[in-house]
Amino acid sequence: MRAAVSEATTSDSLPTFAERFARFEAMDLTLSMARGQPCSEQFDLSNDLWAAFDESCDYQAENGLDCRNYPGGPYGLPEARKFFAKIVSATPEEVIVGDNASLQMMQNVITWALLRGVPVPGVSGGERPWAKEEAVKILCPVPGYDRHFTVCESLGIEMIPVPLTAEGPDMEVVARLVAADPQIKAIWCVPRYSNPTGIVYSDSVMDALASMGTAAPDFRIFADDAYAVHHLDDSPPPMKSILAACKEAGNPERVFVFGSTSKVTFAGAGVCFMAASKVNIDYFAKLFGTQSIGPNKVNQLRHVRFLSGVPGGLKGHMQRHADLIRPKFEVVENVLAAELGGTGLATWTKPRGGYFVSLDTKPGMASQVVALAKEVGLTLTGAGAAFPYRKDPADCNIRIAPTRPSLDEVRLAMEILAVCIKMVAEE
Amino acid sequence: MRAAVSEATTSDSLPTFAERFARFEAMDLTLSMARGQPCSEQFDLSNDLWAAFDESCDYQAENGLDCRNYPGGPYGLPEARKFFAKIVSATPEEVIVGDNASLQMMQNVITWALLRGVPVPGVSGGERPWAKEEAVKILCPVPGYDRHFTVCESLGIEMIPVPLTAEGPDMEVVARLVAADPQIKAIWCVPRYSNPTGIVYSDSVMDALASMGTAAPDFRIFADDAYAVHHLDDSPPPMKSILAACKEAGNPERVFVFGSTSKVTFAGAGVCFMAASKVNIDYFAKLFGTQSIGPNKVNQLRHVRFLSGVPGGLKGHMQRHADLIRPKFEVVENVLAAELGGTGLATWTKPRGGYFVSLDTKPGMASQVVALAKEVGLTLTGAGAAFPYRKDPADCNIRIAPTRPSLDEVRLAMEILAVCIKMVAEE
Repeated sequence: MRAAVSEATTSDSLPTFAERFARFEAMDLTLSMARGQPCSEQFDLSNDLWAAFDESCDYQAENGLDCRNYPGGPYGLPEARKFFAKIVSATPEEVIVGDNASLQMMQNVITWALLRGVPVPGVSGGERPWAKEEAVKILCPVPGYDRHFTVCESLGIEMIPVPLTAEGPDMEVVARLVAADPQIKAIWCVPRYSNPTGIVYSDSVMDALASMGTAAPDFRIFADDAYAVHHLDDSPPPMKSILAACKEAGNPERVFVFGSTSKVTFAGAGVCFMAASKVNIDYFAKLFGTQSIGPNKVNQLRHVRFLSGVPGGLKGHMQRHADLIRPKFEVVENVLAAELGGTGLATWTKPRGGYFVSLDTKPGMASQVVALAKEVGLTLTGAGAAFPYRKDPADCNIRIAPTRPSLDEVRLAMEILAVCIKMVAEE
Repeated sequence: MRAAVSEATTSDSLPTFAERFARFEAMDLTLSMARGQPCSEQFDLSNDLWAAFDESCDYQAENGLDCRNYPGGPYGLPEARKFFAKIVSATPEEVIVGDNASLQMMQNVITWALLRGVPVPGVSGGERPWAKEEAVKILCPVPGYDRHFTVCESLGIEMIPVPLTAEGPDMEVVARLVAADPQIKAIWCVPRYSNPTGIVYSDSVMDALASMGTAAPDFRIFADDAYAVHHLDDSPPPMKSILAACKEAGNPERVFVFGSTSKVTFAGAGVCFMAASKVNIDYFAKLFGTQSIGPNKVNQLRHVRFLSGVPGGLKGHMQRHADLIRPKFEVVENVLAAELGGTGLATWTKPRGGYFVSLDTKPGMASQVVALAKEVGLTLTGAGAAFPYRKDPADCNIRIAPTRPSLDEVRLAMEILAVCIKMVAEE
């Protein structure tokens, strides 16, 4: 991008929104706040990921397995299962560790549910493949993660939006829907630092999800715990384990929890994992085992060694991530507060972790704001992206992803966003 | 394993089979010839795979992409597409490069065919998902690769065995079946150094596969070119490109070719690829793009750099592999010839590449031989494994995988195998 325009305004009065917009235009910018990507300095924290192999050529796992060879099976390396189990309060036997994309593991689980079903011991009906239903439906708390919705759309799964409150999905709506319709087979959740609103599910929401009566005997919760260790401050909000909640409620098979190191080490080259009851894990390990001889064990071994060895361990590593991105979230808050505070034109979230800020304009403005920002070179996540079929009924939600750009770019982008909101409001 | 018994026989006469068997028993062996795994010395050839990152921390692809981050898309890195395209005489635009398991990519293509179909431009019917058929059938040249059969079995695809000759599948049988039955949607092929017989498909078989009339409008060839560069001698047999054959025959969409570096670098931690018409590639890239933000680019980058930089490039690297395993194939041939030559008890193949020798006993003996070998600690691939549903109708086929054990172990294992065959024949 060009250097920021530094000339003072020629008039004594504050510049109009149109004047500020014209200045942004003149800057010929290329800024993107569209995706939740770590910045280069964050990746640099993990550059030693591959260092140790060079010296020792040591590819041997704790159990003596040569990670360069095939054997190992579909569960992942024992030390990796142990490491990632801790993150989500599971036992190693309740975890499968896979390759780089947790999204792919979620999609894979859903595909197998469609083709082979997801049995629940002692409950009849779960052995029936979902694809045998007239329609398969999934509840989508909104706003939510667009990639979850893409998975469903490509597999022909009908998405039913349900409101997301500050405590989690609106459980009155959810409970009523799942009790009535056996075609509703699942619900998407990002329980911690929800994408994009950043909220953390309350204990009572967790308990309600775990215990509610469902018409589908094989109902499942897809809990994408993408930000399990991605706190912005040092005293992260507590969150009840959804695995524990389901066990307590007598529905141990109800939930699959997913996570990955995409925003811990390298976004495109990490490892992912899934945690669930041993019954679920063994069922899917068997199916995964028909697809592949096993995941990339070298990558798993390297991740466990690296993340165990960094100063302060995983916690220290994630604090260094937070130190790099916290100032960006602060700039978002400060600029939005200065520009839009008290105007009534927008509300926005103040997350304590995760990768996003969710902003709501007044109804009917978001598409225009995103289009206007694009005119001066700022790419935001497409309006409506956080809703199934890209349809935000109120056309008000804009997802802000501040982590990738530099601090100055984030500041500029937020000024542009604010000016665009004001201009659209004026029209 | 214990040291080999070195005492001479106490009698002047040659030991009986039973006496030799008793000696093997006394050795308390643990030998496995069950799976086609490289040996540790082969893996050592690629220990530098990760070396360069340590010094340079350079994760930047040719197009400037930071391979540590998400962007890149479902096609794989441009330099990786270019590199692997050459191996199968395709253009980079005809290639997708993925993660470590080509089997998973094959399974994924079949799963999408079931759920979404595999359209052929200008041909009606291909847009219909395979799962909409009453039954989906696939032709399986036998003996073949057990993992292909497991994929089909887990997805409920009916397998129809067809004979594999020294030139490829028996094309009279294949052509008759595919012309008559629209539920036959595909055929499995390992065109080069077929698993387990080691044969290479002839040009006329390639042309026949490419041009034959099929009742299914969306018929596909799954060509697992697992041993594309895995020659045992310096003048490898030529093989016509199945991609070219299908183009020539006016059926460019008919074939998917798969390959991987599982037996080039690390068996569990390499990269895989798929080559097909640009129409097929773009169709599947779009679907793969819904499953994952993209494959592990760091692993792809590292593979291209390493394999381009080793002495003699990929060819030199594969010659060093061949130098390590050729002697093992020679021992198999020599021991079997010495022990079983002229007895009429067995025939076996003499492959010029790949990872297996296929042995046929007289009918009805294979299961007993494999069980007997197990009694003295030699694990062979389960009898029948090379056939759909693990049913070898003649119970005669035994797959020999000589690459993983040491030369001495291979010799001993072949002696055991020969003795077991003779003992079963005597009974």
